[in-house]
Amino acid sequence: MTAALANVARAADPARPLAADPLPSWNDGAAKKSILQFVAGVTTKGSPEFVPPAERVAAFDNDGTLWAEKPMPFQAFFMLDRVKALAPQHPEWQTQEPFASLLKGDMKAALAGGERAASQLLMATHAGMTSGEFEKIVSEWVTTAKHPKTGRLFTEMVYQPMLELLAYLRANGFKTFIVSGGGVEFMRPWTERVYGIPPEQVIGSSIKTKFELRDGKPVLVRLPEINFVDDGPGKPVGIQMQIGRRPIAAFGNSDGDLQMLQWTAAGPGQRLCLYVHHTDTNREWAYDRASIGGLEKGLDEARARGWTVVDMKADWKRVFAFEKP
Amino acid sequence: MTAALANVARAADPARPLAADPLPSWNDGAAKKSILQFVAGVTTKGSPEFVPPAERVAAFDNDGTLWAEKPMPFQAFFMLDRVKALAPQHPEWQTQEPFASLLKGDMKAALAGGERAASQLLMATHAGMTSGEFEKIVSEWVTTAKHPKTGRLFTEMVYQPMLELLAYLRANGFKTFIVSGGGVEFMRPWTERVYGIPPEQVIGSSIKTKFELRDGKPVLVRLPEINFVDDGPGKPVGIQMQIGRRPIAAFGNSDGDLQMLQWTAAGPGQRLCLYVHHTDTNREWAYDRASIGGLEKGLDEARARGWTVVDMKADWKRVFAFEKP
Repeated sequence: MTAALANVARAADPARPLAADPLPSWNDGAAKKSILQFVAGVTTKGSPEFVPPAERVAAFDNDGTLWAEKPMPFQAFFMLDRVKALAPQHPEWQTQEPFASLLKGDMKAALAGGERAASQLLMATHAGMTSGEFEKIVSEWVTTAKHPKTGRLFTEMVYQPMLELLAYLRANGFKTFIVSGGGVEFMRPWTERVYGIPPEQVIGSSIKTKFELRDGKPVLVRLPEINFVDDGPGKPVGIQMQIGRRPIAAFGNSDGDLQMLQWTAAGPGQRLCLYVHHTDTNREWAYDRASIGGLEKGLDEARARGWTVVDMKADWKRVFAFEKP
Repeated sequence: MTAALANVARAADPARPLAADPLPSWNDGAAKKSILQFVAGVTTKGSPEFVPPAERVAAFDNDGTLWAEKPMPFQAFFMLDRVKALAPQHPEWQTQEPFASLLKGDMKAALAGGERAASQLLMATHAGMTSGEFEKIVSEWVTTAKHPKTGRLFTEMVYQPMLELLAYLRANGFKTFIVSGGGVEFMRPWTERVYGIPPEQVIGSSIKTKFELRDGKPVLVRLPEINFVDDGPGKPVGIQMQIGRRPIAAFGNSDGDLQMLQWTAAGPGQRLCLYVHHTDTNREWAYDRASIGGLEKGLDEARARGWTVVDMKADWKRVFAFEKP
């Protein structure tokens, strides 16, 4: 950590040369500067902004913040693939909505049934098995399924600049958490390998589980009932439930992250609230206000309050690691 | 950690002298030996029992395992004190049960109303305020309230041998978690100071909370509704929800911990499942089968499966730190 701190000190002092850039995929600009200054402030002993390592909690949204979310959140592809895989055991799905439309490849028609249809698809694919079985299903899917546009594994569709930011914060004593609307057990099998974030630092939406002894062997059975929705106002609730202290830095990309950023900003001392703004049609996607689960109120509030807004097109040298640098 | 590992290696090898005993308040015996052997096995590289540090998760019950729980769980004293403190604002409590009996000091009569009475007392004292306000209330109480028998702060009624065990496990790369039926927000304000366990490693029972903006300031309001009961079959559920991986060591003292120990034992490789058995009428209390929330099935299962059972009277040199060594 000493070397990292020295780099931060140098980065914060423009007169001194930077030994090694901790954020090489970030272009120099206001966004990068705000990150470096924040980290320098909270890690410099004797600084009025100093925060003890135990309190250096950073919360990251996942979909659209750490990895892409277009043309639809990647968990929806998992759901689709699971419906296809399970269809032979459910001949009735050929004629029964929302399954019938989904099996014909028409996601839009499948979701026309609104929340009820979404819930049916979710429960048919996420409940009924044990937690161990579900972990295995996700692990297999995530190492084989490909993104329809790029042909890459979904876990390759993670943002290189955000990976650098995660590593940079950890090198400076931060504990990094995911706080996502996605399913917590959908993320945990791969977040440690892909993001360096262990399962106990992943907060997400969940269904209920039940402890049972099956032939004397204890299992946790996943029940078709929502336990917790970790989105919007649910994010501060989830943070308090699982972390029990307020983050000093929070990162999101949509209005579903707004309450998390508000909650983070409301603590004392220096805070870093950052929105990733999707502005790059060529290397990624460009969307905000018009998009479902988009960024509208959050963008206005970020500008009004001086939060960091990352312009992906201008601020990021590379979006994905697989791009040529 | 190198020094700690060396000590473990020495401890596991009776032919070599022990440089410094990591568990000085434990008498030599089967319980202490089982702990030392387990830690030596999972931390020795190249050993077939080796477990990578990231997977060294240890789960501790709190009431009766890390601190005492007699004459009643300490959170009940908190509840009682809060009813007294709030009584002036609730003149109706003078005649309304269960409050009237409680205010007369008759806990037994107050709880005669069963679960409904207990729930009324719980919600009247634990809900209605913000999470920040509740943290302040608990912090003040825990630094001033005294145990009725010993006259000590409740946080002094922690078991010295268990503090040594927590430190020993952490020195060997373990992450130590509390998994308690007690209220999670009742524990978090003091577990870091008393046990070295940070808030994000505390799992407990909870009531629901709601995010609100009050005059533009975000708060989490504690609602009079149960969210999660972290006891019995709830403990493995809570562990999966918050940690997302199975502990390799678990410590309890009652049948409410049995499922946690079963869940821990069912994983592959070497496991440490340990029951603290209250056998010391002089220095602490002696109870098991006849006690409410006692140890009955768990004791039978521990003996049948060869789990470690700590005989407090025989195995512990000191129970509390305040005792003369």
